[in-house]
Amino acid sequence: MLTGKNYIGNKLSSKGKVTFKTFNPKTNTPNNLIFNEVSNEELEEAIVLANNAFNKFKNISGDKKSTFLNAIADEILDLGEDLIKIFCSESGLSQERALSERDRTIFQLSSFANLVKEGSWLEASIDNKELPDIRKMLIPLGPVVVFGASNFPLAYSTAGGDTAAALAVGCPVIVKSHPMHAGTGELVASAIIKAAKKTGMPNGVFSNLNSSGIQVGIDLVKHPKVKAVGFTGSVAGGRALFDLANQRKEPIPVFAEMGSVNPAIILPKAVQQKKKELAKIYADSITLGSGQFCTNPGLIIGIKSKDLTNFIENLATEIVKIEPTCMLHPNIIGNYEKNKLKLASQKGVNIEVDYKEEVDKNYGRQVILTVEGETFLKNTTLHEEVFGPFSIVVQCKDKEQLLEIINKLEGQLTGTIWAEDEELKNNIDINQALQSKVGRMIYNGVSTGVKVCRSMQHGGPYPASTDSRFTAVGVDSIKRWARPVSFQNCPNELLPDELKDENPLEILRYIDNKLMV
Amino acid sequence: MLTGKNYIGNKLSSKGKVTFKTFNPKTNTPNNLIFNEVSNEELEEAIVLANNAFNKFKNISGDKKSTFLNAIADEILDLGEDLIKIFCSESGLSQERALSERDRTIFQLSSFANLVKEGSWLEASIDNKELPDIRKMLIPLGPVVVFGASNFPLAYSTAGGDTAAALAVGCPVIVKSHPMHAGTGELVASAIIKAAKKTGMPNGVFSNLNSSGIQVGIDLVKHPKVKAVGFTGSVAGGRALFDLANQRKEPIPVFAEMGSVNPAIILPKAVQQKKKELAKIYADSITLGSGQFCTNPGLIIGIKSKDLTNFIENLATEIVKIEPTCMLHPNIIGNYEKNKLKLASQKGVNIEVDYKEEVDKNYGRQVILTVEGETFLKNTTLHEEVFGPFSIVVQCKDKEQLLEIINKLEGQLTGTIWAEDEELKNNIDINQALQSKVGRMIYNGVSTGVKVCRSMQHGGPYPASTDSRFTAVGVDSIKRWARPVSFQNCPNELLPDELKDENPLEILRYIDNKLMV
Repeated sequence: MLTGKNYIGNKLSSKGKVTFKTFNPKTNTPNNLIFNEVSNEELEEAIVLANNAFNKFKNISGDKKSTFLNAIADEILDLGEDLIKIFCSESGLSQERALSERDRTIFQLSSFANLVKEGSWLEASIDNKELPDIRKMLIPLGPVVVFGASNFPLAYSTAGGDTAAALAVGCPVIVKSHPMHAGTGELVASAIIKAAKKTGMPNGVFSNLNSSGIQVGIDLVKHPKVKAVGFTGSVAGGRALFDLANQRKEPIPVFAEMGSVNPAIILPKAVQQKKKELAKIYADSITLGSGQFCTNPGLIIGIKSKDLTNFIENLATEIVKIEPTCMLHPNIIGNYEKNKLKLASQKGVNIEVDYKEEVDKNYGRQVILTVEGETFLKNTTLHEEVFGPFSIVVQCKDKEQLLEIINKLEGQLTGTIWAEDEELKNNIDINQALQSKVGRMIYNGVSTGVKVCRSMQHGGPYPASTDSRFTAVGVDSIKRWARPVSFQNCPNELLPDELKDENPLEILRYIDNKLMV
Repeated sequence: MLTGKNYIGNKLSSKGKVTFKTFNPKTNTPNNLIFNEVSNEELEEAIVLANNAFNKFKNISGDKKSTFLNAIADEILDLGEDLIKIFCSESGLSQERALSERDRTIFQLSSFANLVKEGSWLEASIDNKELPDIRKMLIPLGPVVVFGASNFPLAYSTAGGDTAAALAVGCPVIVKSHPMHAGTGELVASAIIKAAKKTGMPNGVFSNLNSSGIQVGIDLVKHPKVKAVGFTGSVAGGRALFDLANQRKEPIPVFAEMGSVNPAIILPKAVQQKKKELAKIYADSITLGSGQFCTNPGLIIGIKSKDLTNFIENLATEIVKIEPTCMLHPNIIGNYEKNKLKLASQKGVNIEVDYKEEVDKNYGRQVILTVEGETFLKNTTLHEEVFGPFSIVVQCKDKEQLLEIINKLEGQLTGTIWAEDEELKNNIDINQALQSKVGRMIYNGVSTGVKVCRSMQHGGPYPASTDSRFTAVGVDSIKRWARPVSFQNCPNELLPDELKDENPLEILRYIDNKLMV
């Protein structure tokens, strides 16, 4: 079923000379299939196809896009066991994870299918009480480049949130497949292409490009016909793409979801009442999926007390009970080892626990560091994300120091507060300070686990994302790829259906500032 | 009443050593008052005040912000004749224009006052059918720097659209006053400060900084406590700010509304039927306000015919009948003269009409150039904006060439098509091509005149703006300065009122994907 080739629009293609393989971190051996890196010529062809497809795709109705998105979901399910197997062999992740990530991917696609069928996302509005008659709605930006994420081979990759949102708007998508799971990518791409053919979408609405290096990504972001970029990954990677896009003659928006240590503040009464429970909860959350989540709680902050000391001891006890699991790739574990050592070797840092048991190759061993508030404040290296089953517990001398630390943090995807209602009410300043740093506030819960729904903000102030005004998850993520256009005095017949007097699509619209159907 | 000082929060301040004066282009003499450029110390103080004010201002209710915005409008009206006089003396614009621009400014402020009172702009949503309970709403980004525009001393300056939108969200504003109308700026600033005091807004919610150079702007955009920037002006200026903001350690959004030649396509039947009428309409539109509008029709495109030749002749006849008017400043007219010469001296360009009569100093003389489609296609210098009473008419050899030209244009604020319904229906390709380049499509009307309403898109693909996903005009322009934040499992009592179960503000919200109050 797999070919190792690129999808240049509907066509499998392998003109490039460079090849690479994916790697099974569980068996610590390369997988068999050889992948052809996309050639310059193929890359150009994919973009030209996307640009041509855009001229048709941008005018396709919400109903038809909805059918297309649902068809993609069906075709992905239809890949059955093949997809689950290759997912596991290229990621070291479990079958349960593969199944749940597939569910999420399907759910995302069907959420967007519902959204574009319903139509209120278009923010259609009409002002015609006085002349001139002005009407407005959102239209697609143009071809979007999506970079597959290393840590979510399905939900943030080929047919993941970025792609689903872009197709929903009416933007053709060119995926730069993640080289660690190129096979998973090709299978999902085949499902998208099948769906596109079955539902009569224009050739070029989707392409899937293989590459193990960085040049293809650079060429894509710099290409004048590319109009936006979606990325999930490291700060270094996301920032590089953001910079490239902004240095273009015509700058384009890059939505990069990047780094976050997801600070969790445990207030004194919460730590007093829940130290055992919290230790267990955090041991699980920190090691979940080998800590390879952008919402991994990499920073826990409390105020020095016997209870906090107790919590740390309990956390150490609980976390070593957990069996390490396989990480995504030797490069990922290599970085993990390097970065945890870097932080552990900083002055004033105490290694509270370091899992020492023998483990299989590529299995990530958990580490908990502790540090005084003063030390943490002074050394911003300790604020850096360590991607893996890692967390650092900061012991503040008092509430003022805790506030000072929050104010010194960089932007984050999430911020968590553990506190009873009364304690929370007495610490509104902490609540406010944390809110100013994050995209999502969590109360008495963990940051891992991102519910896919409209109210989810998955993003946040830099470096959590490149633009805090947008989200990577939930139907509002569609706004990343759309722009408003106004029509002044356009004859009714020539208006898009969404803006016609008679509202044939029966969508929600603002008429002279009043929302109505 | 005027002091020449800066407003550092509520306080008039003049610690800077450098001074400058504004200039009356009508009398061709400097105005009397001496303005103190803001010092580094004052700039820092303004930002610190804004940042401190933000901590209070961001939590102020929509009702109170509404009162504040309306109070600003009242205080501006209260400036009475003083404002109108200084407006005219610093801009060379007429009293009628001063009055209509003041009306627009007042209208914008009251539109935002209504918007924040009503609350649906917050995009509040609740998803709690299943756990975890997630709720989301928009919150302000932080202190916003607004650059006053040279060509709209009121509506796009001190209390203009950028400022009104930012204050409406809950962002303190630091205005870098335009040095050409620093007196108008100070008067309006005094109105804002009075309104802030009367309505109990925190000190620092607004500051007004004087400077005739570029360093103050650079320092503001680079300051870590500044979280967004609004700008209206040249491509060179806007791009420089955009680049600075993106090169920061923490990049921030810049919404710059910049260059546009606002192409108007006149299809053959329209030119045949309306050549006289159109000539008159364009003579008026091109010279309106000495052509100093971002929506000035700087490019008219038709297909070669006797009718088009007739139209051009009529346009030439009509436009010389119009008395030149005073331009904003010697620098503006200097650039106008330089740029119109630059385009007029390009190979293959014909000067159709060049107003030769004697005029007062600083009065802008209208010019119409004509050029063949082929020449225009080859020479992108001819695509550049000439800010002033100027337009270039392109005569295409056929429809294909016309389409080719549209496809080669850069992004534009507006695009206009003149055509009867039937002709428009037969030229959907032209309609589509133009739409892909612009923020606003106009049918059988002129691009000058921007109706302030929700459905207005004033922005567009680069270089019309730095981000086509946002608008500078209309209530949706508030979205430039806001970001979503989610609350997960937050106790009801501690949620912002906008997200509480009982919906005390009775705002429109999405509850489990259904919009309701």
